[in-house]
Amino acid sequence: MIIVMRRQASPADVAGVVARLAEIGCEAHVSAGQFRTVIGAIGDREVISTLPWEAMSGVEKAVPVLKSFRFVSRDFQEEDTVIDVGDVSVGGGSFTVVAGPCAVESREQLLRTAEAVSAAGARILRGDAFKPRTSPYSFQGLGEEGLKYLVEAREKFGLPFVAEVLDSRDVGLVSSYADIIRIGTRNMSNYSLLAEVGRQPKPVMLKRGFTATLEEWLNAAEYIYKEGNHQIMLVERGIRTFETASRNTLDITAVPLVKTMSHLPILIDPSHSGGKRELVAPLARAAVGVGADGMMVDVHPAPDTAKVDGAQALLPSEFADLMESVRALAGVLGLKT
Amino acid sequence: MIIVMRRQASPADVAGVVARLAEIGCEAHVSAGQFRTVIGAIGDREVISTLPWEAMSGVEKAVPVLKSFRFVSRDFQEEDTVIDVGDVSVGGGSFTVVAGPCAVESREQLLRTAEAVSAAGARILRGDAFKPRTSPYSFQGLGEEGLKYLVEAREKFGLPFVAEVLDSRDVGLVSSYADIIRIGTRNMSNYSLLAEVGRQPKPVMLKRGFTATLEEWLNAAEYIYKEGNHQIMLVERGIRTFETASRNTLDITAVPLVKTMSHLPILIDPSHSGGKRELVAPLARAAVGVGADGMMVDVHPAPDTAKVDGAQALLPSEFADLMESVRALAGVLGLKT
Amino acid sequence: MIIVMRRQASPADVAGVVARLAEIGCEAHVSAGQFRTVIGAIGDREVISTLPWEAMSGVEKAVPVLKSFRFVSRDFQEEDTVIDVGDVSVGGGSFTVVAGPCAVESREQLLRTAEAVSAAGARILRGDAFKPRTSPYSFQGLGEEGLKYLVEAREKFGLPFVAEVLDSRDVGLVSSYADIIRIGTRNMSNYSLLAEVGRQPKPVMLKRGFTATLEEWLNAAEYIYKEGNHQIMLVERGIRTFETASRNTLDITAVPLVKTMSHLPILIDPSHSGGKRELVAPLARAAVGVGADGMMVDVHPAPDTAKVDGAQALLPSEFADLMESVRALAGVLGLKT
Amino acid sequence: MIIVMRRQASPADVAGVVARLAEIGCEAHVSAGQFRTVIGAIGDREVISTLPWEAMSGVEKAVPVLKSFRFVSRDFQEEDTVIDVGDVSVGGGSFTVVAGPCAVESREQLLRTAEAVSAAGARILRGDAFKPRTSPYSFQGLGEEGLKYLVEAREKFGLPFVAEVLDSRDVGLVSSYADIIRIGTRNMSNYSLLAEVGRQPKPVMLKRGFTATLEEWLNAAEYIYKEGNHQIMLVERGIRTFETASRNTLDITAVPLVKTMSHLPILIDPSHSGGKRELVAPLARAAVGVGADGMMVDVHPAPDTAKVDGAQALLPSEFADLMESVRALAGVLGLKT
Repeated sequence: MIIVMRRQASPADVAGVVARLAEIGCEAHVSAGQFRTVIGAIGDREVISTLPWEAMSGVEKAVPVLKSFRFVSRDFQEEDTVIDVGDVSVGGGSFTVVAGPCAVESREQLLRTAEAVSAAGARILRGDAFKPRTSPYSFQGLGEEGLKYLVEAREKFGLPFVAEVLDSRDVGLVSSYADIIRIGTRNMSNYSLLAEVGRQPKPVMLKRGFTATLEEWLNAAEYIYKEGNHQIMLVERGIRTFETASRNTLDITAVPLVKTMSHLPILIDPSHSGGKRELVAPLARAAVGVGADGMMVDVHPAPDTAKVDGAQALLPSEFADLMESVRALAGVLGLKT
Repeated sequence: MIIVMRRQASPADVAGVVARLAEIGCEAHVSAGQFRTVIGAIGDREVISTLPWEAMSGVEKAVPVLKSFRFVSRDFQEEDTVIDVGDVSVGGGSFTVVAGPCAVESREQLLRTAEAVSAAGARILRGDAFKPRTSPYSFQGLGEEGLKYLVEAREKFGLPFVAEVLDSRDVGLVSSYADIIRIGTRNMSNYSLLAEVGRQPKPVMLKRGFTATLEEWLNAAEYIYKEGNHQIMLVERGIRTFETASRNTLDITAVPLVKTMSHLPILIDPSHSGGKRELVAPLARAAVGVGADGMMVDVHPAPDTAKVDGAQALLPSEFADLMESVRALAGVLGLKT
Repeated sequence: MIIVMRRQASPADVAGVVARLAEIGCEAHVSAGQFRTVIGAIGDREVISTLPWEAMSGVEKAVPVLKSFRFVSRDFQEEDTVIDVGDVSVGGGSFTVVAGPCAVESREQLLRTAEAVSAAGARILRGDAFKPRTSPYSFQGLGEEGLKYLVEAREKFGLPFVAEVLDSRDVGLVSSYADIIRIGTRNMSNYSLLAEVGRQPKPVMLKRGFTATLEEWLNAAEYIYKEGNHQIMLVERGIRTFETASRNTLDITAVPLVKTMSHLPILIDPSHSGGKRELVAPLARAAVGVGADGMMVDVHPAPDTAKVDGAQALLPSEFADLMESVRALAGVLGLKT
Repeated sequence: MIIVMRRQASPADVAGVVARLAEIGCEAHVSAGQFRTVIGAIGDREVISTLPWEAMSGVEKAVPVLKSFRFVSRDFQEEDTVIDVGDVSVGGGSFTVVAGPCAVESREQLLRTAEAVSAAGARILRGDAFKPRTSPYSFQGLGEEGLKYLVEAREKFGLPFVAEVLDSRDVGLVSSYADIIRIGTRNMSNYSLLAEVGRQPKPVMLKRGFTATLEEWLNAAEYIYKEGNHQIMLVERGIRTFETASRNTLDITAVPLVKTMSHLPILIDPSHSGGKRELVAPLARAAVGVGADGMMVDVHPAPDTAKVDGAQALLPSEFADLMESVRALAGVLGLKT
């Protein structure tokens, strides 16, 4: 932690901060410049970060040197985390494709989609039984019935599946059916839900809050990790910016940045970020180029009847076409798909 | 709903949209311009909004004419909602001051603060027993013990209190102690929590998500309202922008905007928005000027030892000084405090 | 400057940075923590800031301790700058009201507006002869003819006036007529224009770029100041955020923040920030409450025929009503208007 | 234009809008819903867009159906614009690589870099003689001397070059030397500069303002186009968002979006968007994947001595490595480099 004193700070103010550091067993390195005195605090990060330095007399600001997450950082673990889901690996040199409908709407809709994405080369199925919707008047999902259809699809087509959970009280239920549990963008800062999925055994897919910084996102992963579940994959799905031409702004730079900050695998969702069908293929190809560990794509047999997010769903044939170019690009970069 | 067709849309595409509207019992008004055809859809808003118009052939975009919330809108209720909490009213021509510590840290800390804010003219006490923290390593609150201290403060100083709830499973507990239940900024899109507080009888204070649009915020209020709880007060607490000199950017324009869109009262939190003690008084006076229904202020007897957000807490004496100018300004505008 | 080394930085990397600091005559304070080494650089700010520290081997990031502007900072000048324009003062305990049409559209439109705002208590007239417009097909202003009408209005009603300049080649022309020259939001980073207005003698009104940080804004002021013109007043007019319900988000927190960072006076523009007539009065009253040095308001005798920004212009009668409450609030706070 | 009336609008208000449309020779299609009346205005876009609809009695908002730019839109020209610069083409199925130092610092620095980027396969050289800097104390460029070195490099290595212009008064000078004139991000809304480069004959490279929407960016292109210069290439270089881990957020979605909205070619700048050397290669490969028409990359022989943006410059050897993977990816997608 670096503590920058105010211009008007007195020697007593400086001494006060130094004394406080000594109390908690930390060293203080004081550097007096012409306009400001700066105090470097050396010691246990967690202890230092709990004190309200900026509330102390004469302090202008406190700048952390280290990020606030620990276990999910590259500082803690140098090598990439690789997550095994059945015979599929996420991370470690593959480009893993997750595909399926945004929401499970019916048995037939799900099975048709699952068959198509499996044939085209997807390795994991997506499909949600619980949907968080901005408006309380929108379709909220089929619940447990949807999870049962997903199990049927897994049995028929051999694809493990990922499904979202919205409420701490449903974690056990979703975990008992799904291969991967997803935390959606709106719940990334729902800390009691994060802790709850951290206590069940299935891998967790953690979407970035559409207004979360990378540091906040990795702190959310830390909430899961510290409860004992270390199989966490991240999904970048666009952030909120001033630009309104696309639903969100895909923050593709997050991929190389996260890879320097953390050992966790990171995928891209080209469907929810852009929000429009014609943007999916270009963004998916960009995901391969930038070095993501995979992607998650919405596919629907009849998008113009979809109950959720139809505007961004690919038809099965469009998805199959996309998979061809994705495989070709991934091949050039030496990645398995 | 206004449906704008693509430049390349065929007559069959237009006919398709018109037919779909007819199926759901709505009228279509077709206007053909030089470059685009526009279709006005007239009929039941909820029915129209459930269909995936943008996924239909030839459609460029669908622009809603009405907001997606209903009951919390001025369209639904013309007159202001006024919420009574004991003998305190929120809304309807008062400037109600809520004050207290960000978190309840100890019995003594709470009682000292409650005594001071009561003496200075606050009408409602704040103090949280459950705290959502970005880092899992930060102080998470005293839990039920904290709620008991709040009850003791209420009895001693006659101030009703507001406390945050983080988890659907704790709603009953917090509701059994508190006079007002608060949904914090990180949980504004936690729809199952919203529904849960909508089913208990205490008034709800709903903070704006720091990245929520006004429409999303009012939709969150709609989630509560439609479960049967109509006593909802809103709190603007700053939004996330590119500016990093303050913790968040207080969106003061939200006050007059919300008042045209909704009948619910709206308060301002000058403490969490700026994140710095020296910003609190100017922002609080701006809150009076802009026409807010009140404010909520952090006060702490020893901010430099605070476990949460010490940098923004006022000392009791600073709060008392602020209350003087707030009362004077409110008086000029004819508002009770 | 604080230089944070990467986790993998070698002792040679650290030595390299220290040697580079020595070369430019600066001291290096090295603090080695468990995960990172931090180097405090003490010496001449301008010399230190010219070197590409982040490009050096082993450096993770360089964090400046001081802001990059010098002369406009409170570090350089403790007391408030007060600008005299004729017998009007801006800064130093007044709330100065600037009002008039967004653009000069005709002699009659200007004179009618000037008469009305003068009668209602405005102290400075606004009106532009050159308008920057997003679309090349919009009205671009009357040019020199407009400036002549402004001079006529000044003579008739005794109000000094402010007018915008868009092009370095027009600075002499505008300066020869106007009492205050304005740099608009779109030109805040037009550094050659800033330098040019810094070389003419009239006071300068510098609007914040709608996407500029406070530090960038004060650096823009520094461009003017260092050319010799020290009479600079700042105008906050809203920033671009994700919220689209208002044209921009008035960053009211900028007022107390700028007052800690700089000695320059700061006004608020409640018209351009909100972009809607019904928002002007609430935001104007918030400007008084927050402690701004004044405000600039659009007034138009017939907004529904305005060539620019009619939706936000007040009618003269609305402006007169607003001035009453502004005077009352300013009086409570001990400010002249 | 779609004009949405307020809930409280009277029949006279609706009639007023309709009459106003009739006056300007436009048709009005009135649709009365339960809560709002909507008026579709059909007629000449430029005429309609000049009137202040939102200032008229009873109007809630006016929603344009068409974008405000005309000539640069796909509506106006269906086929892609291809720009020839010597024997290099930009647009129309190539991935054109522009590379060189951010700023020309010396003859030797430029020639060494030009030689290296030419050898590695760049087709156009970059290097600026005039630099816009946030701080007035930073290096501002070599001026005409720098342009002369660029001409020498062109002659030696056969690469046409692009250079930035900052001031309307320098357009003639830069145009007399450079093959392509660049408008930088800070000047994207400097309309008199845009018009001035529109009147000279060299192709123009228009960077996106880091806070400009796509519509504003294309309007800036329209300013150039309507002066007679139709050879405009766009460069996406990152936008300002809340995320601070990278300098800006590369808006990669802008590429497919611009391609639907406009016929102009669009390149990506992976150097200025991320601001860090290790981000350049991933973002460059994403640029190929997403379908950009090329990219512009900073290369410097000794980044740790660079006067501008050293932290993001690639070494010549790093650039050569990057070009290999870029060529391989472009090959898969059938693009020339």
